[in-house]
Amino acid sequence: MADALSRKKDLEDLQADLREVEDLLRPPALAENESGVEQGSPRADLLPHTQKFAELRAKLDPMHPADIAYVLESLPLEERLVVWNLVKAERDGEILLEASDAVRETLIRSMDAQELVAAAEQLEADEIADLAPDLPEEVIHDVFKALPVEEREQLRAAMSYAEGAVGALMDFDVVSVRADTRIEVVTRYLRRFDSLPHHTDQLFVVDGNERLKGVLPLSKLIVSELQERVDRVMLNDAVTLQPSDKAQDAAKAFERYDLVSAPVVDEQGKLVGRVTVDKVVDFIRSKSESELLTQAGLREEEDVFSSVWASVKNRWSWLAINLVTAFVASRVIGAFEHSIEKLVALAALMPIVAGIGGNSGNQTITMIVRSIALGQVQKEHGRKLLAKELGVSLANGLIWGSALGLIAYWLYQKASLGLVMTTAMTLNLALAATAGVLIPLTMAKLGRDPALGSSVLITAITDSGGFFIFLGLATLFLV
Amino acid sequence: MADALSRKKDLEDLQADLREVEDLLRPPALAENESGVEQGSPRADLLPHTQKFAELRAKLDPMHPADIAYVLESLPLEERLVVWNLVKAERDGEILLEASDAVRETLIRSMDAQELVAAAEQLEADEIADLAPDLPEEVIHDVFKALPVEEREQLRAAMSYAEGAVGALMDFDVVSVRADTRIEVVTRYLRRFDSLPHHTDQLFVVDGNERLKGVLPLSKLIVSELQERVDRVMLNDAVTLQPSDKAQDAAKAFERYDLVSAPVVDEQGKLVGRVTVDKVVDFIRSKSESELLTQAGLREEEDVFSSVWASVKNRWSWLAINLVTAFVASRVIGAFEHSIEKLVALAALMPIVAGIGGNSGNQTITMIVRSIALGQVQKEHGRKLLAKELGVSLANGLIWGSALGLIAYWLYQKASLGLVMTTAMTLNLALAATAGVLIPLTMAKLGRDPALGSSVLITAITDSGGFFIFLGLATLFLV
Repeated sequence: MADALSRKKDLEDLQADLREVEDLLRPPALAENESGVEQGSPRADLLPHTQKFAELRAKLDPMHPADIAYVLESLPLEERLVVWNLVKAERDGEILLEASDAVRETLIRSMDAQELVAAAEQLEADEIADLAPDLPEEVIHDVFKALPVEEREQLRAAMSYAEGAVGALMDFDVVSVRADTRIEVVTRYLRRFDSLPHHTDQLFVVDGNERLKGVLPLSKLIVSELQERVDRVMLNDAVTLQPSDKAQDAAKAFERYDLVSAPVVDEQGKLVGRVTVDKVVDFIRSKSESELLTQAGLREEEDVFSSVWASVKNRWSWLAINLVTAFVASRVIGAFEHSIEKLVALAALMPIVAGIGGNSGNQTITMIVRSIALGQVQKEHGRKLLAKELGVSLANGLIWGSALGLIAYWLYQKASLGLVMTTAMTLNLALAATAGVLIPLTMAKLGRDPALGSSVLITAITDSGGFFIFLGLATLFLV
Repeated sequence: MADALSRKKDLEDLQADLREVEDLLRPPALAENESGVEQGSPRADLLPHTQKFAELRAKLDPMHPADIAYVLESLPLEERLVVWNLVKAERDGEILLEASDAVRETLIRSMDAQELVAAAEQLEADEIADLAPDLPEEVIHDVFKALPVEEREQLRAAMSYAEGAVGALMDFDVVSVRADTRIEVVTRYLRRFDSLPHHTDQLFVVDGNERLKGVLPLSKLIVSELQERVDRVMLNDAVTLQPSDKAQDAAKAFERYDLVSAPVVDEQGKLVGRVTVDKVVDFIRSKSESELLTQAGLREEEDVFSSVWASVKNRWSWLAINLVTAFVASRVIGAFEHSIEKLVALAALMPIVAGIGGNSGNQTITMIVRSIALGQVQKEHGRKLLAKELGVSLANGLIWGSALGLIAYWLYQKASLGLVMTTAMTLNLALAATAGVLIPLTMAKLGRDPALGSSVLITAITDSGGFFIFLGLATLFLV
């Protein structure tokens, strides 16, 4: 396959493309004339000359929308908008769909209502619904009015589902056939299509009332005898979803059964749409990314090139929460100032006890949260898990606590200080293990997502708890 | 679709199944006879009575291998092995493939060499290669000998690829057709199959030397005229992979272009295999999970029901590293013990400065690591990103630092202490921002994975750095 013909690229080619785009965006003035101050408008240096303009457009036109989205995401804001204005208007919708949330916002903010309506109208109902949260009210209103009745209903339905529901992943590109027809008729019917919808790996088999009876994989259709009836060759063990099912559970079904598409039916068993694996892949990716972001306290995906102020807003709530927990820990220490004054070594040793407790607690909680998400752990297992984690913490406490106790003894030549260190460490690890098991299990029992906030909570507990245990023991036995 | 016919289940049904299995495993003796001590063998209480035994088998037999793997993963070790022994031997291979690494190990450990060889022989070459790392040497040797020559070559090839390479995701179930045949011939050829390989959404079009010329999607084949020649309707812009390509880049291509399958060719352009989306989904999932685990310092996936000792081993290296960094931070404090003795408030306030620095640094590093992974950030952007992050840290330092300065003043009635607090906080946030940008960019430049270890590194820097800055300033200006 000649590479020159490939529209689709691997990441290296794409980065080469990006560099070419960046070169074309670079003002020639700066290269030839280092001062470059005479240029009047602050943006004039960003507008490529007419020839470069044409080159850039020639570069962008054959690119896949996903690749253009990548280029846009990789450019600082001003350059990004220059490229965005060069892209053919009829591809706006597709590219917006492919761009990340943060970058999509910057692109939408640069467009007027009319452009947005035009972009949305290029898309299908389920795709418009994906963009809808970022679109101004009046644009959605105008798009609604412009749609044919059937699509309008689809859009209304698609917009009504919560973000984590199957309905939000669903599209309406179903090809359905009647159960009582013959394979030959199906084959002739299909040949009338210009092309089948993307990800059509199976046809949906329905009765006269549009109720789903089974599925007919294309790979099975192709090897079937033409005289055979559809309901003789169809499969009736297909995974069937409902619009209100959790997207996460649907994703698990796709993983477990290696699906490419799955039918979605309403409560009466009527076929209403389908979910395809590409949407599931996007869902899994964005879910795992938001987990990573949440762990670091980033509220949402951040455009790396966004303004300082946007970043401050995205990050402040996490810092505020941590400030509160740090303040509480600080007050715990404050209560023992008298002891620290008498034995200043405590100040140097206490962060070790708190820190190791936090690390160990986070290990426990990560493992339990993950097992809950996989459905492997139920609340009945609580006692068993707690016993195991307490065992682990005891082992770690004895190993690492003793090591630290020896170090403390070696540093300060005080055996009792070493003993307090070992005991405090073991107790704080046990506290970490208990909290690490109970926090996620309790959150799951209350129907909340155990991944959310449990890491802050356990760090708060092991910090304040660690300071309290260590300084408390020291006050009792050392000063 | 009648639910009774459904072999595939949603998670709720599956959990109901799991509970039934657990009920069947529960010894009746315990319910009727609370003492239950008279039972001789320690495991006797786990062996279900013959009738329950039959019920359990009847429950397991119609289940999908992935669902049985789920049940096995959700059971504590002894119960797990009881169920495992009940599963029909001819399904062992498939179930082992579906089980998580940690659970697979426990299952394999319970089997003898003969059983393992039999299980492996049920699988295809690429699947055996997936199991191979967990199998004893002599089992692999025996499997090799038992394979037909062609599959033996495939197995050798599959086992030769590194874990992160496309070759490791590849299978050999390709259906290829010649470019110069007619659609009608292709259709007749396909009808001779009993069924097409799973995930066959396209046929691979080759020339007389097995060199890939293009792809023919089934959805296109089905709508094509029978008289048409294959090379007239085939697509030649398909994404083509090589066995040595990075699996991660292949996964990105699948995401960007919404692929179901992609051909793999060798350096001469000869078709050697294909990658399918189910493997890619597994790869994405396991990659994102290992990222989450790594962040918490878990070396590998842990079987929640594994022994205390296995867990201690899995977690110890992370605790050891953190112990070292905590020790260093402790020594920094130790150097300022004199100042703390004079002004004990410092001991209570210093963890706040260190902690907030760590949080903020982790936010920066998470965002930059993610952008590097998406290929959006190159090292040329370093200066721009550093300027932005320093801006963010300055804003946060002034806002939160001032708030903390006021609190410190209010607590200890010492304006100079508040001022030192604000300054130390701002400086530590600036340190966090600098390290948060430079660490991942430097690691990427050195060709290392920026996600690995950067979180420990930044916490170590902001802890020791925070203590040093705060206590240093205090020593200069307060005591």
